[in-house]
Amino acid sequence: MNPLTTAPGETARTPHDVPTGTMKAVVKTKPGPGVEIRAMPIPSAGPGELLLKVLRAGVCGTDLHIYEWDAWSQNRIKPPVIIGHEFVGEIVALGPGVTEFQAGERVAFESHIICEHCSACRSGNGHVCENTRILGVDVNGGFAEYAVAPAVNAWRAPANVPLEVNAVCTAFSGSLSACRIAVTGCGPIGLFAIGVARAAGACQVIASDVAPYRLELARRMKADAVIDVSKEDFVRRVRELTEGRGLDGVLEMSDNGRAIRDGLAALRNGGRLSLLGLPRENFELDWNNLLIFKGITLHGIVGRRMYETWYQMDNLLRSGRLDVRPAITHVMPMEKVSEAIEQLRSGNAGKIALVPWGQEA
Amino acid sequence: MNPLTTAPGETARTPHDVPTGTMKAVVKTKPGPGVEIRAMPIPSAGPGELLLKVLRAGVCGTDLHIYEWDAWSQNRIKPPVIIGHEFVGEIVALGPGVTEFQAGERVAFESHIICEHCSACRSGNGHVCENTRILGVDVNGGFAEYAVAPAVNAWRAPANVPLEVNAVCTAFSGSLSACRIAVTGCGPIGLFAIGVARAAGACQVIASDVAPYRLELARRMKADAVIDVSKEDFVRRVRELTEGRGLDGVLEMSDNGRAIRDGLAALRNGGRLSLLGLPRENFELDWNNLLIFKGITLHGIVGRRMYETWYQMDNLLRSGRLDVRPAITHVMPMEKVSEAIEQLRSGNAGKIALVPWGQEA
Amino acid sequence: MNPLTTAPGETARTPHDVPTGTMKAVVKTKPGPGVEIRAMPIPSAGPGELLLKVLRAGVCGTDLHIYEWDAWSQNRIKPPVIIGHEFVGEIVALGPGVTEFQAGERVAFESHIICEHCSACRSGNGHVCENTRILGVDVNGGFAEYAVAPAVNAWRAPANVPLEVNAVCTAFSGSLSACRIAVTGCGPIGLFAIGVARAAGACQVIASDVAPYRLELARRMKADAVIDVSKEDFVRRVRELTEGRGLDGVLEMSDNGRAIRDGLAALRNGGRLSLLGLPRENFELDWNNLLIFKGITLHGIVGRRMYETWYQMDNLLRSGRLDVRPAITHVMPMEKVSEAIEQLRSGNAGKIALVPWGQEA
Amino acid sequence: MNPLTTAPGETARTPHDVPTGTMKAVVKTKPGPGVEIRAMPIPSAGPGELLLKVLRAGVCGTDLHIYEWDAWSQNRIKPPVIIGHEFVGEIVALGPGVTEFQAGERVAFESHIICEHCSACRSGNGHVCENTRILGVDVNGGFAEYAVAPAVNAWRAPANVPLEVNAVCTAFSGSLSACRIAVTGCGPIGLFAIGVARAAGACQVIASDVAPYRLELARRMKADAVIDVSKEDFVRRVRELTEGRGLDGVLEMSDNGRAIRDGLAALRNGGRLSLLGLPRENFELDWNNLLIFKGITLHGIVGRRMYETWYQMDNLLRSGRLDVRPAITHVMPMEKVSEAIEQLRSGNAGKIALVPWGQEA
Repeated sequence: MNPLTTAPGETARTPHDVPTGTMKAVVKTKPGPGVEIRAMPIPSAGPGELLLKVLRAGVCGTDLHIYEWDAWSQNRIKPPVIIGHEFVGEIVALGPGVTEFQAGERVAFESHIICEHCSACRSGNGHVCENTRILGVDVNGGFAEYAVAPAVNAWRAPANVPLEVNAVCTAFSGSLSACRIAVTGCGPIGLFAIGVARAAGACQVIASDVAPYRLELARRMKADAVIDVSKEDFVRRVRELTEGRGLDGVLEMSDNGRAIRDGLAALRNGGRLSLLGLPRENFELDWNNLLIFKGITLHGIVGRRMYETWYQMDNLLRSGRLDVRPAITHVMPMEKVSEAIEQLRSGNAGKIALVPWGQEA
Repeated sequence: MNPLTTAPGETARTPHDVPTGTMKAVVKTKPGPGVEIRAMPIPSAGPGELLLKVLRAGVCGTDLHIYEWDAWSQNRIKPPVIIGHEFVGEIVALGPGVTEFQAGERVAFESHIICEHCSACRSGNGHVCENTRILGVDVNGGFAEYAVAPAVNAWRAPANVPLEVNAVCTAFSGSLSACRIAVTGCGPIGLFAIGVARAAGACQVIASDVAPYRLELARRMKADAVIDVSKEDFVRRVRELTEGRGLDGVLEMSDNGRAIRDGLAALRNGGRLSLLGLPRENFELDWNNLLIFKGITLHGIVGRRMYETWYQMDNLLRSGRLDVRPAITHVMPMEKVSEAIEQLRSGNAGKIALVPWGQEA
Repeated sequence: MNPLTTAPGETARTPHDVPTGTMKAVVKTKPGPGVEIRAMPIPSAGPGELLLKVLRAGVCGTDLHIYEWDAWSQNRIKPPVIIGHEFVGEIVALGPGVTEFQAGERVAFESHIICEHCSACRSGNGHVCENTRILGVDVNGGFAEYAVAPAVNAWRAPANVPLEVNAVCTAFSGSLSACRIAVTGCGPIGLFAIGVARAAGACQVIASDVAPYRLELARRMKADAVIDVSKEDFVRRVRELTEGRGLDGVLEMSDNGRAIRDGLAALRNGGRLSLLGLPRENFELDWNNLLIFKGITLHGIVGRRMYETWYQMDNLLRSGRLDVRPAITHVMPMEKVSEAIEQLRSGNAGKIALVPWGQEA
Repeated sequence: MNPLTTAPGETARTPHDVPTGTMKAVVKTKPGPGVEIRAMPIPSAGPGELLLKVLRAGVCGTDLHIYEWDAWSQNRIKPPVIIGHEFVGEIVALGPGVTEFQAGERVAFESHIICEHCSACRSGNGHVCENTRILGVDVNGGFAEYAVAPAVNAWRAPANVPLEVNAVCTAFSGSLSACRIAVTGCGPIGLFAIGVARAAGACQVIASDVAPYRLELARRMKADAVIDVSKEDFVRRVRELTEGRGLDGVLEMSDNGRAIRDGLAALRNGGRLSLLGLPRENFELDWNNLLIFKGITLHGIVGRRMYETWYQMDNLLRSGRLDVRPAITHVMPMEKVSEAIEQLRSGNAGKIALVPWGQEA
């Protein structure tokens, strides 16, 4: 049973049950570390929007950045804002003009609200929209009893809903079939990437991290080999594991300059490195030897390729090729969100699912 | 144990053991159906060439075309020629200038001898070389005790050597990861394609044929579903199996115009069809509705993409992701080649391996 | 001056000038050949829509199919419908919720109204939307004084607006830079394709047709060479013109089975053919020799790749690299639409521009 | 007349004229700055090789690195070695086994001698061969009266031979058709890249440098706009020139960290940057804002994509779409090579052609 995607049987809601008044929510109330549980008004569904009763939410590395109030957060977040951008819920109200959905359906939300009229959007590249607003970052998100978002962002959840589609995008930005792939960094997204790379046909998946707990999760997500980079030399170990051939691709999720340098060094000539982790510093690189003379391609990954990657994830999950359950290590009440974030920070957690108030795990 | 790739332990040969005289071989001696077992001179290794003692050979659809002396064969084959282009052997002599190999090594031969100087070859597209000569078709092949070919065509065989790399090429001419794929036609190459598509990350692999024996082999190669097109409507059945989504790709191996039309009809808009089978007739098509309005891409596949596909197959086999053994249904003495071809023709065989004279199966 | 894109200076309209009552329009009133000029109600702009005063319209091959009432039209068109899908106009009214545009702006409409929620649309492939409705085909179009369409379909016209974006899509479905390209069929779209291929970097552009008038237009659009296939053998002539190298790509616009066969024969191994013309019959093909053994890729082109191709066309036009004026041969009053269609049918026209009632050319 | 590619009419040599004895050559005789003119043995053509009488050579940035004896040279060059890797000549002797060429033909040499058996080579990616040896770097080159190289490296020179194919490779590593492109750095390769980008269909080509002399050459190679980055802000100026749209691609040839950062900043979201220049230092980068959040793709370019790029260059030159003559600013006797290198170093030269001893310019 997937704790992120199932919930006790609710009876279908009809439109006249639209909730009003206040709700509990996890709010970044002011600049500085931490978050607070607050009463907030229940939002209403505007034109083209859906109102969801949140059933489950997932804690992501971005939530951790906001909680810690790092440099990126200080520039981007305008408190107060309800955090949380990964969640699944049940539709309880439809805004004017929404015809594609019905009350009672279960959906997840793509967290990037795009403008639909910049040149990126109009060219089918909404994932690099110049006016993106992110749920739980730029507008109120889903760590709450209710949440609202445009209906075009809703994805009908298969029984085993994807909560970490970013992993798919990173993985699919290059070829996987019959390739040797390393995933550097085994946080929640890294763990999902391991599962996706396996399911999508990589012939060898090597995972690296410094936390033994996470390396064990990597093994459970079916990594063919794991490297503890606090003890072993990544480049040398990869050379052994690939019998000298080197890697075809690296999916970098560790936020770490050294991992990027090692990843480039471990690639075969002509390989590719996809950057998802946000490096914490402006580190330097031996461009000539690591990139140019090897003919490497490097992709910056922002968000996910909408909604192509949702379809791919949906396909992998429905077919049973991908099983994300081993990566979900904790289910906690949403009230304990700070504890959950500290747990994630410690390295002793994979994906943590939060259960809103008044619901059973 | 893979009957195509193993053989009783031979002692390594040294160059002074180079065999001379005559050998037994399967020869297309003259225009018309059939083949003959004949004594032929043992070839010698010219500059840049290798002489192999053949250990195992595989019967392919092309051998069947030559045996039957169909229209294509009548135009192409200039008897007498030793047939057979799939084989693995042990190096017994190195021609002048060959430094990369040693006597005693086991290798398979890429069957297309390319010119290396036409524009296709010089652009890394040797698989569409304008001057290709094929072993067992244009020059003497490997249904014999010994065979010779350029050293650049030799591939060091993993313990589980690929004998059907064409399947890889067809499969890889489009995306497989997370895709819904149909393989139409479950002869030897189709069976390998099913295994490759599964191993390389397709999320659903549907196989079709008219022979129950072959459909059973398709299941053993791990097709997710099989369709007996003598009894069921392909297009309707695919629609059910894909829950209305249609196919992302079709790998066509059946030589059959109807299968191509049905394959196009079963594709989703924007899908692709790869053509490997050689249609027996110049059939017509509803171009507008099957191809243009659906925005389909159609690839003609000739030979394989050298040697990129060998690496991919090698990767899939070494990693254990791909197991081709269920597709190899018979091991027969090379002496009984006519019987083997009749067996293949009947539809009651997958891949048939031939054992040269004087060797044990 | 481009007769398709300019019009006598109109004063900007304010929203309270919204026209009502009836207008003149070119209507397919009933099954069978021909069209009629009729009085029709002026449409109003619904939610998310724009109402345009039509300034110029272009006659396209599709209009000719509808006029002739061919097999395709009989299946598709449900009279009565105002025809015409290529037009530029001035915004005279904004429907509820439209904020991106202002009255008085000049825009062209992408003619494909897509559903935005099928899997093709959500994957950035709206050009193969399964629920497309086409202006002037499935819903009322622009051969009229006024026309209405969704605001998301509007494209701010550069002074030299693109009216034939399909040509771009065909051209861009494969590589053009430094390639040898043939355009088979020099109707309006073929002529634009010649200009696009030149501007977008093809190193040799060869055009073919049977009408001397059109071949002369092809020359004026800067084709490097033209072939009159009523007098010369296409394949042999291409071989001479390319010094034996063959074509890298063919953009097929002629609706003619023979042109497709000749185009395939004239491609180099590994080349590609893009199919835009709608063949009038289900012709057959020597699949083995024309497609499979040559390793050809064949693309079916439906509509255009929205809006990526509009950006490309916009770039080429704004930069001055592409000049479409030589392809526009006639400017006629919209009242004379039947005459215009007959002119196009005769082969003695390139693009014909229509001027609505009450406007000066 | 192109001074790099033409020479006074020589009578065709027959094989019995094979030159022997000594010749003059430009030699890196020992570690440290500078080069010397020395007498060296005339090489002979080994198996599969050609001996050329050198007619013209070109001075490249790499020669400058070797002359200066920079960090890269100190690691790579093993004196004594004849430098020079860009040259065209006449065949005066064929080694054993060479059948494809005749004495008297004019050819240029691809400067990368590849191994043909590593996995990169066998996959059609010889440009990232792991065992590449470069003429004039790892083995004796062409600043001499005679030079030898494998026949497979020879390219029959069109009257206007390509001497700077690297530029093509950089340019073609991403789309050019209808794109907005910047070339940062207008040395010899940058100048050729400008010409290639124009000829291959870019709709806007912007060039930047700090040397007025080079910016003037950029204009003569048909850059649409030039930016003197010693006086103007690159990012702001690009924004103006592209009317706020940003660049689709950057071809970086300047060896300069700041140019790379500015290039990334001036790209639109989803754009690409190709790195050819070898940065002189391991500079750092704001990875998050310049690369990841913008979804950029970055390609390291080593050598050229053999021989695909030769064909593309050949196509552009033969068609007359590309004219490289404005970039060739000096023709000097090879004896004056040091003076030529100093000239290039000063920024007051484009391409410099060298004429071997005993030949007229």
